Amino acid sequence: MSRYIFYHVEDLDNYIIRFFEKLGVSHADAAIASDVLLAADLRGVESHGLIRLHTYYGSRLQNGTIDPASPISIVKETPATLLLDGGKGLGQVVAHTAMTRAIEKAEQTGVAIVSVRNSNHYGIAGYYAMMALPHDMIGISFTNAQPLVAPTHGRTPLLGTNPIAVAVPSATQRPFVLDMATSIVPIGKITVYDKAKKEIPAGWGIDKSGEVTQSPAEVLNGGALLPLGGTELLRGYKGYGLAMMVDIFSGVLSGAAFGGDVGRPRENKGANVGHFFAAIKIDAFRPLDEFKQDMDALLLQMKNAPKAGGEERIYIHGEKEFELAEYHRQQGVPLMDEVVKSLKEAGEKIGVEFNLHPMSEKEGSEL
Amino acid sequence: MSRYIFYHVEDLDNYIIRFFEKLGVSHADAAIASDVLLAADLRGVESHGLIRLHTYYGSRLQNGTIDPASPISIVKETPATLLLDGGKGLGQVVAHTAMTRAIEKAEQTGVAIVSVRNSNHYGIAGYYAMMALPHDMIGISFTNAQPLVAPTHGRTPLLGTNPIAVAVPSATQRPFVLDMATSIVPIGKITVYDKAKKEIPAGWGIDKSGEVTQSPAEVLNGGALLPLGGTELLRGYKGYGLAMMVDIFSGVLSGAAFGGDVGRPRENKGANVGHFFAAIKIDAFRPLDEFKQDMDALLLQMKNAPKAGGEERIYIHGEKEFELAEYHRQQGVPLMDEVVKSLKEAGEKIGVEFNLHPMSEKEGSEL
Repeated sequence: MSRYIFYHVEDLDNYIIRFFEKLGVSHADAAIASDVLLAADLRGVESHGLIRLHTYYGSRLQNGTIDPASPISIVKETPATLLLDGGKGLGQVVAHTAMTRAIEKAEQTGVAIVSVRNSNHYGIAGYYAMMALPHDMIGISFTNAQPLVAPTHGRTPLLGTNPIAVAVPSATQRPFVLDMATSIVPIGKITVYDKAKKEIPAGWGIDKSGEVTQSPAEVLNGGALLPLGGTELLRGYKGYGLAMMVDIFSGVLSGAAFGGDVGRPRENKGANVGHFFAAIKIDAFRPLDEFKQDMDALLLQMKNAPKAGGEERIYIHGEKEFELAEYHRQQGVPLMDEVVKSLKEAGEKIGVEFNLHPMSEKEGSEL
Repeated sequence: MSRYIFYHVEDLDNYIIRFFEKLGVSHADAAIASDVLLAADLRGVESHGLIRLHTYYGSRLQNGTIDPASPISIVKETPATLLLDGGKGLGQVVAHTAMTRAIEKAEQTGVAIVSVRNSNHYGIAGYYAMMALPHDMIGISFTNAQPLVAPTHGRTPLLGTNPIAVAVPSATQRPFVLDMATSIVPIGKITVYDKAKKEIPAGWGIDKSGEVTQSPAEVLNGGALLPLGGTELLRGYKGYGLAMMVDIFSGVLSGAAFGGDVGRPRENKGANVGHFFAAIKIDAFRPLDEFKQDMDALLLQMKNAPKAGGEERIYIHGEKEFELAEYHRQQGVPLMDEVVKSLKEAGEKIGVEFNLHPMSEKEGSEL
């Protein structure tokens, strides 16, 4: 069990912006980075939220492996395609710029794709895919990441958890927002089980010899995560293939690092993370209202379908996260007490006091 | 065990073309459809090859649910986007036309996407993705399909095995060709186990109440396939999300059928299958030789990585299939004796004799 402390989202936003500004980030860029980080905590993806403010972004801004100016430059551009160099900038700022450009270009050309080199961890992939929604476009966002996943028949981590995010607007239903790691679980999930001294389900990870293990410590110490699908019997090579696809679009197409060479957060060098974004203008294909009505029909087919024994609800991708975000906007964003402690310490060191008033506190399980 | 009879690929090609021509298909279109069907058998994807020549294509050409003229028409077009109506044509002909157009357009615009409505089963998705390779492009191919897969927490089939195919050129290595159903296994795999009276591995499918079952008969009779990932514990909702993504791009974006409404092969009505294709010109981003060298490096990172205990080889996606295709081109394409029998019967009925000389015969297991 952990203790969770709930803070008002606007208070946290203010704090994060001040934190980034103190480390040399402009107000506008700090606001973007804060919005992406908070979106993760709001949506219940704690592993990609404030827990990383100091441990990843702050420490890398301080050691110079992230450039606070995020000096993004154009490497190559055509009306429908764009290759950006992120200039070792903040991943969120680089990705926000890239997706903004993808949307602007797709407004003209119907479809546009943007690949990005020389960036850093960009937070939740779904944030950028969702940027397309107010423009009545389909949004796509991929990124490669530090190696944690073993290829099928391998035993060492050579691929990131390389997420795939796709956001699609609908009429009266919430939009479809798929935002999935191509591994079964993120590494943070293994860490949580390790701390709780609990066994992990068979299939999530392997030990250093490549055997499936239920020991989280064996996964963390020389083992690896398994790709979606798990073992060969359940077709884990498909998850391995999806992770490769994301790496090709993000790393190889852009000229960023790829495979086992993507920088690990703890390494004191540029990570050279690669991203990929796409925007598709729906009315380049069909009248928007027809498309949205059909999206509603598809989503309702799933939601209204007969349930398996013991199940009460079939979810659409993103639905749980939208509901959680609404709840957290009203009731506060939950942060583990140890996250709050490290935020306070990190803030003190650079002279940005974490003096926020909690809305409430609660015990809860991370498992 | 089944008996396999091996035929020369050119003899089979001749027969298939004559078969299609007899049913009113032009020589050029018959040659395309034959090439796609044979690509499946050559690559070891028997379920999508000659086994369907009569059972799917022939029977539907005869009952009028496939139009032998494949009267494809443009619904909407911009420089980088295209929506086609397949005119109830042969899926292979429609898809070949669509991917050809995607490649032509991407030559001009760097990226192009084509969505297709009113088509039929198009064979292996990877065929069309691979069409991009000689043009030094990345190719993408999706299709929706008859409902066989249950959404997570559901118990009825509402989504197709909706494949994702992505082909990427490299320098000295074979290209990366991911061609994967978004279910764990195709329905044909369950049928094979049912015929062999063998249990299926836990996770492949569910019975009519939504419980995981090892009985292939229970999956076939009122049950459903599970999406990649399987149960919720191993994140089957990600496979469910990928199947939805494919259906949105193929069915909803094009205005084809989607979800549970995609036509089943045995229904005597137009299937209204939807497809999606994309082509990305690599040198719109990076010099081609740099990209291809990096692809080699990524593929070799995987292939040369330390192996899990008991494993001798890490495969790249498509590698096994390329090797099989080369072997089958030399040694003959294997057809199960019962497939040969049904081809002979179907041919006799329409006056196209299956009088090919086998190269060899062999006993083999389908499991």
